[in-house]
Amino acid sequence: MFGTMLDTPLLISRILENAAERHGSSTITGFVDQVESRTTRFDVVAARAGATAHALSQLGVGIGDVVGVLSESRTEYLEALFAIPSMGAVVLPLNFHRSPDATASFLESNTVSVLMVDPENLPSVEEIAPRVESLRHVVVLDSVLPPGAERLPVEVHALESLLDGLSATYPWPALDENSAAAIAYTSGTTGAPKGVSYTHRSVWLHSMQLCMAESAALTSGDTVLTTVPIHHVMSWGLPFAALMSGTDVIIARPRPGQAMHLGADIAELLATHRPNKFMTTTATLQRLIVRLEEHPQSVSHLAEVAVGGSAVPEALFDAFVERHGVTIIQAYGLTETSPIAAFARPDPHSSATHRRAQTLGQGRFPAGVQARLMDGDRLQPNDGWSVGELQLRGPWVTAQYLDDHSPERFVDGWLRTGDMATISPRGYLDVVDREDDIIASGGELISSVELEHSVIRDAQVVDAAVIGVPDDRWGHRPLVLVHLKPGAQVTARTLWENLEGRVETWKRPDHWAFVTDIPRTSVGKIDKLEIRARHAAGRYEITTISPGSQH
Amino acid sequence: MFGTMLDTPLLISRILENAAERHGSSTITGFVDQVESRTTRFDVVAARAGATAHALSQLGVGIGDVVGVLSESRTEYLEALFAIPSMGAVVLPLNFHRSPDATASFLESNTVSVLMVDPENLPSVEEIAPRVESLRHVVVLDSVLPPGAERLPVEVHALESLLDGLSATYPWPALDENSAAAIAYTSGTTGAPKGVSYTHRSVWLHSMQLCMAESAALTSGDTVLTTVPIHHVMSWGLPFAALMSGTDVIIARPRPGQAMHLGADIAELLATHRPNKFMTTTATLQRLIVRLEEHPQSVSHLAEVAVGGSAVPEALFDAFVERHGVTIIQAYGLTETSPIAAFARPDPHSSATHRRAQTLGQGRFPAGVQARLMDGDRLQPNDGWSVGELQLRGPWVTAQYLDDHSPERFVDGWLRTGDMATISPRGYLDVVDREDDIIASGGELISSVELEHSVIRDAQVVDAAVIGVPDDRWGHRPLVLVHLKPGAQVTARTLWENLEGRVETWKRPDHWAFVTDIPRTSVGKIDKLEIRARHAAGRYEITTISPGSQH
Repeated sequence: MFGTMLDTPLLISRILENAAERHGSSTITGFVDQVESRTTRFDVVAARAGATAHALSQLGVGIGDVVGVLSESRTEYLEALFAIPSMGAVVLPLNFHRSPDATASFLESNTVSVLMVDPENLPSVEEIAPRVESLRHVVVLDSVLPPGAERLPVEVHALESLLDGLSATYPWPALDENSAAAIAYTSGTTGAPKGVSYTHRSVWLHSMQLCMAESAALTSGDTVLTTVPIHHVMSWGLPFAALMSGTDVIIARPRPGQAMHLGADIAELLATHRPNKFMTTTATLQRLIVRLEEHPQSVSHLAEVAVGGSAVPEALFDAFVERHGVTIIQAYGLTETSPIAAFARPDPHSSATHRRAQTLGQGRFPAGVQARLMDGDRLQPNDGWSVGELQLRGPWVTAQYLDDHSPERFVDGWLRTGDMATISPRGYLDVVDREDDIIASGGELISSVELEHSVIRDAQVVDAAVIGVPDDRWGHRPLVLVHLKPGAQVTARTLWENLEGRVETWKRPDHWAFVTDIPRTSVGKIDKLEIRARHAAGRYEITTISPGSQH
Repeated sequence: MFGTMLDTPLLISRILENAAERHGSSTITGFVDQVESRTTRFDVVAARAGATAHALSQLGVGIGDVVGVLSESRTEYLEALFAIPSMGAVVLPLNFHRSPDATASFLESNTVSVLMVDPENLPSVEEIAPRVESLRHVVVLDSVLPPGAERLPVEVHALESLLDGLSATYPWPALDENSAAAIAYTSGTTGAPKGVSYTHRSVWLHSMQLCMAESAALTSGDTVLTTVPIHHVMSWGLPFAALMSGTDVIIARPRPGQAMHLGADIAELLATHRPNKFMTTTATLQRLIVRLEEHPQSVSHLAEVAVGGSAVPEALFDAFVERHGVTIIQAYGLTETSPIAAFARPDPHSSATHRRAQTLGQGRFPAGVQARLMDGDRLQPNDGWSVGELQLRGPWVTAQYLDDHSPERFVDGWLRTGDMATISPRGYLDVVDREDDIIASGGELISSVELEHSVIRDAQVVDAAVIGVPDDRWGHRPLVLVHLKPGAQVTARTLWENLEGRVETWKRPDHWAFVTDIPRTSVGKIDKLEIRARHAAGRYEITTISPGSQH
């Protein structure tokens, strides 16, 4: 027996119409370069998205076709992000920090015929275009073509010339809500990039989640600054949730050639735009706190900061809360989970101690995300201390990868996250470590993340990274890379001793190396594949400590 | 091209599991009678819902079967509200203020074989049961059977005896999310009751909406008191949203035989439970303010009050905000819209004047609700002053009535609400009047609601109701019923003159009647059908004012 409710599909075009009709004067701010911002009203975004859809249609884009976009945070990108799925096509945001080979393979495997690109990224398209047989058109997000455009082996258009005279209204098709809307590839920290395709339904439900008061609680009164680029799961889905709720959004852009923002640049953006919410990664937050210590600046306009990408070290968390009075809310997610799967607002029913633990972990799952911990075939209890691999399912969790890549990452309809974690009885997640990074030492497990956060608590340390290295006696033992503050003079032995009271003796790193550079991926996660490679190549000078000795 | 996201259905059983797993210690408080409350934890609700499903299954209830519930706010009712749809059956909450004939016809037309009932409502079942051929079992929500149970012509069971020894876990079926979950009948202010059936999908999306920060913003830190009974669209969907977000809920129960709560009773509930949110109707709020004026009491624990059912008069709104510092947020909805379709949080982008108008209207529509104004076949602009019939569509708006009743209430896939309204450019709704209540006078339209609110602003008036009555010259002219404060001495002429500056002369009521009772429906709306009937029967003593005269 079916109910009498309308089966109106959840479509991205509806979010766009809602924004134009009801939140027309809310704005999106993008950047033409790192300094020059452009602010566009939602009603203009909607009108230009309509014209963009007509333009793409004239270039032959139809329902189900994939359109690539290689851009930073231009407002034209936001318009395309709505236009492409609304017209029934699929948007493929590309990361310009990936190799031309990787980008070409994403375009080729999705038979992309139209690529939209920032004028300053056109040179990289010169490398890519010849390798993509399906490519027919390149659309430059500008009013004129930059020099060199004529060298491309395909037709090159200036977006504004294409839009000229086109209608701002497009007859958005009535799609199935399970139609693909966007494609993203994992950042590849743990192997070859794997693709997923979000649906109109998953984008809608994820957006509603972001607007829920227990999650990012977006409202029409908020101004949110994000450092998360659109090519990272569409700025974590923020633009869709913002147009749903009328939230003003500023999508920052790092300096040319940089994957990450400098602390000084973020501090300036905060001072200029005075957002009340800020979404960023742990790595960027770390840069910001260093900057704020060297150049004090009030950030009292910030009500809260949502942080994802990797766990926020306790020292960083406390520094923000205590010195700047800003609430830090951790978020957990993956490309495979749209991405936000958990959000760390503490539960007022819990004790102060538990609430602190809840905010230092990765967050509580909402009703839409089912979670379980597995130790092989064995379900682990959600008791807050039993560790298992986190597995997820739900309407914004992927069921598979594109082309059925890596089927071993799915089991009985659950996504294997590869994260070793605990879940508390109230549903709060604490990621202990990546499955591949946890250190099995003499039958016990040591969390590389816990060691990193403990070493970072030392006042002389800027950054730290831990990997396991083979050990004849224990199987594996921890090696820590330490990045000291400028001018700091401290021995490995002293740092080791300073862990007293924070880390049990048997867990402390045996091997120490002082470095000035800890490799990170484009999403700001520590690149442990790279560290292992450098270690294998003998590139670290290592001091080994045995507890009884006096190194 | 379909996306790779899981097509996990949105099912009520998932909300229940989420509540048990993650919000186990949040609570629901129901009432055994008007005074004695019972508080149950969400994990207990979930466990007892599992056992209830087993018990119903043993009585022959299967997928698609409709189960009736005739109860007030007992916690057992909440358990059934989750158990019945989770097991694939359909819950039919019944209103004990309806006639036995109406209740019997709802049961009969849905082939109900099992009816769950409060022990104190069993006598009314004696009247109903013999008229319902399909009825086989009556389950009394108690541990023993009350006297008289043996007189019923069907099997009568005590719920607790049925649950005894049953498993708390039930294998909730993997249903289609468009399956019916619950049935409700309109309150029939404008004709015969019409039924709709909510789906698992519509309940889910409506619940997510209620948790959104722009809507009721429910969180696990909230305690919400509601006076809206479960048989009124399941307390406006509050229990589902509460179990989604971990919100504590108290569902009040009026004194026996009363459809509405007394001001004193509400004041006591507020003092006892100190909720931070309160959901109620305009009529109940009116009773509360009178009580608070006579018996002052701090309500500073209230962060906000969500009010629906009918428009909140400006005088009442200001009294709460100014005298008690409590924010009033109006909500708009219908049985046909699950019910919340709009929520009146002001838009911070607007001027103070506009924000005031936004909060005095019925609210802004969320992305999930499409709205349009129609004047016959002509679409009216959303300019804030063009009036048209409000028509709605969206995933929690009904597409039809059960048995395809009243197909004229639907046009081109839109629900005709029967409300004459304006919509502002920012999507804020202002309901001018019911289509049937607006007074067409000499080619102009007079809003009966506007007149009522203006007359109520008079310090000597408690309540007022306006209907249109035939007039030889103008077609129709307003008749106002006025309920004066105890001891007030004022003439119709004075009240008429006091409208100066608030209502144009030509709009003011010509006909005045002083009464001590204004009939209201069970949802607290003015019962204009009843007023018209009483007027037709000559039961009002009317003073007629002509502007120039000196009555």
